[in-house]
Amino acid sequence: MFEDKNTSLTPLTDLGEFGLIKTLTQQFKVNQSSTRLGIGDDAAVLQFGSDARTVISTDMLVEGIHFDLGFMPMKHLGYKSVMVNVSDICAMNAIPTQITVSIACSNRFSLEALKELYEGIDIACSALGIDLIGGDTTSSLSGLVISITAIGSLDKDSAPVTRQGAKPTDLICVTGDLGAAYAGLQILLREQAIFKENPEAPNPDLTPYEYAIGKQLRPEARVDIINQLAAQGVIPTSMIDISDGLSSELEHIHQQSKVGYKIFEHKLPIDPVTISISNELNTNATVMALNGGEDYQLLFTIPLDQHELVKNINGVSIIGHIVAEIDTKVMITSQETEIPIKRDGWQVFTKDE
Amino acid sequence: MFEDKNTSLTPLTDLGEFGLIKTLTQQFKVNQSSTRLGIGDDAAVLQFGSDARTVISTDMLVEGIHFDLGFMPMKHLGYKSVMVNVSDICAMNAIPTQITVSIACSNRFSLEALKELYEGIDIACSALGIDLIGGDTTSSLSGLVISITAIGSLDKDSAPVTRQGAKPTDLICVTGDLGAAYAGLQILLREQAIFKENPEAPNPDLTPYEYAIGKQLRPEARVDIINQLAAQGVIPTSMIDISDGLSSELEHIHQQSKVGYKIFEHKLPIDPVTISISNELNTNATVMALNGGEDYQLLFTIPLDQHELVKNINGVSIIGHIVAEIDTKVMITSQETEIPIKRDGWQVFTKDE
Repeated sequence: MFEDKNTSLTPLTDLGEFGLIKTLTQQFKVNQSSTRLGIGDDAAVLQFGSDARTVISTDMLVEGIHFDLGFMPMKHLGYKSVMVNVSDICAMNAIPTQITVSIACSNRFSLEALKELYEGIDIACSALGIDLIGGDTTSSLSGLVISITAIGSLDKDSAPVTRQGAKPTDLICVTGDLGAAYAGLQILLREQAIFKENPEAPNPDLTPYEYAIGKQLRPEARVDIINQLAAQGVIPTSMIDISDGLSSELEHIHQQSKVGYKIFEHKLPIDPVTISISNELNTNATVMALNGGEDYQLLFTIPLDQHELVKNINGVSIIGHIVAEIDTKVMITSQETEIPIKRDGWQVFTKDE
Repeated sequence: MFEDKNTSLTPLTDLGEFGLIKTLTQQFKVNQSSTRLGIGDDAAVLQFGSDARTVISTDMLVEGIHFDLGFMPMKHLGYKSVMVNVSDICAMNAIPTQITVSIACSNRFSLEALKELYEGIDIACSALGIDLIGGDTTSSLSGLVISITAIGSLDKDSAPVTRQGAKPTDLICVTGDLGAAYAGLQILLREQAIFKENPEAPNPDLTPYEYAIGKQLRPEARVDIINQLAAQGVIPTSMIDISDGLSSELEHIHQQSKVGYKIFEHKLPIDPVTISISNELNTNATVMALNGGEDYQLLFTIPLDQHELVKNINGVSIIGHIVAEIDTKVMITSQETEIPIKRDGWQVFTKDE
């Protein structure tokens, strides 16, 4: 499971930068009519409809910080890198259209490894119908760094949705379920530790954890929800994607909308597999849902009177509501006690780094 | 010269990611009316005029590969990173409008060091009238990585200029002068080696090399030339910016336009300081101009009949012409002999890395 068995590998120095870019990107197809000029020149050229707005977001993923190649196959890494970025475009209520991908990697990476990475990128682009339009490929002295810029389009009839518009009495909604990606990560870390201790041990049976591991390795950007919101005529008052954990994202809405919130523990969508993993690991599924992160689900607020419209959308849970008292940031537990929520999501700069 | 004398430095862990982003970006002003929503949400929102095209380019700069903090002050690095990226937008005949900046850095960097970096980014943005609209700030296990995406706009009356349109008899033009950035780098490397050998040696007098060192540390994206070309009504048939060296960029035009070229040694614009440094280092100024790289000047071709119009533009040299014979890639030397040009510019993936 954790070994790369590939034997005849091509060093990157055999290709040179331009040969490498060509090899990695030649199979990509153009899906979007707005892509007027893609890979191969100084810059790409895009043309959206008149009055359309362009939405842009960028993220950097660093080996050893954001991913561990010990259990993250390159193809999944490519796929996930795209989804993670596109998720930010969705969180503005926009439709993703293009990405650029830059990578820095050392000579310990082979051409075959990078081809796997770009295969994952290609699968994600095809699934989303978006285009790879450019990037940069360079060497680094140590690990792998991936920087992706995602571009999206908002036509003139759609409004961008920021984190600032949540109003008292608005309902708080989340898509999908929470905590599974974190639960899957804990299983992968546990199995990696066992493997390191005893490389001869039989391969573990990961079937019971498959759902959670899948959420960790192959998260999905919720473009489907953006399309369904548009179909129902719902424009959320605020929206953000859940990358660092629900509690951290609620904090952003609290700070930027200047409102408080109440959420209900029994309304948090948590998959049975996540609950079972939390039991197995002697942790708490609610804490996983609140602080786990990497869900890449959407957290959004809607006016109370749009309740019925949102109920028609598959995979949306209403977990609470916005309150005017800015300092009220609480969860009502299943025991009906009110506990304060602290932002305790994932932090990138840590003391023990 | 090579020492950081700053004594009371703030570790990045004192701030957290969001505090850090706020501290680094709070002084940035919005210059462009097309920037509808900048830093602080999931994504930025841009709105260009109807029928405008969006031009996008991205570059990644890696410590130890693209820059050496031993002689590149953080402020200059920030400035240069912006200019290098914006230069690609200019090379499409577009006007730069926005950038995103992502950085990964280890805990050995202080808040003060990053503030210097962003001060340089801010100075470049102000000089160009462009906006910083987003980015990512994350930790890395080793050096500093900077990834910038530059965005530009082409209004409906302008055409994007690729590398593909050069035609036989077209004149080959370059802006500014060539080889100085490389010459400056050689001086900085020499002085760094002397300093490492003997840290007590008196500070060197770099005054005679100032021009070349300035070109290395503070290159300028030639937005001025794009504006002047537009003012003269000249649309180049092909264009590229000179990042890897003139010979490397001519090779791109050769390959993508499927044409050959003749350039003239005596017409290559080379500053006297570059010539003097090449003499001092026992190298050849022409080779520096051909292969040095990091000039960030523009190389472009124009139809022969636009000769008079281009002559009106300050700082453009005509260095040769395009020929139909695709395999003719030559320089006529000052001794009137014809020598073949090989692409010998800077390569990022090298065997001895």
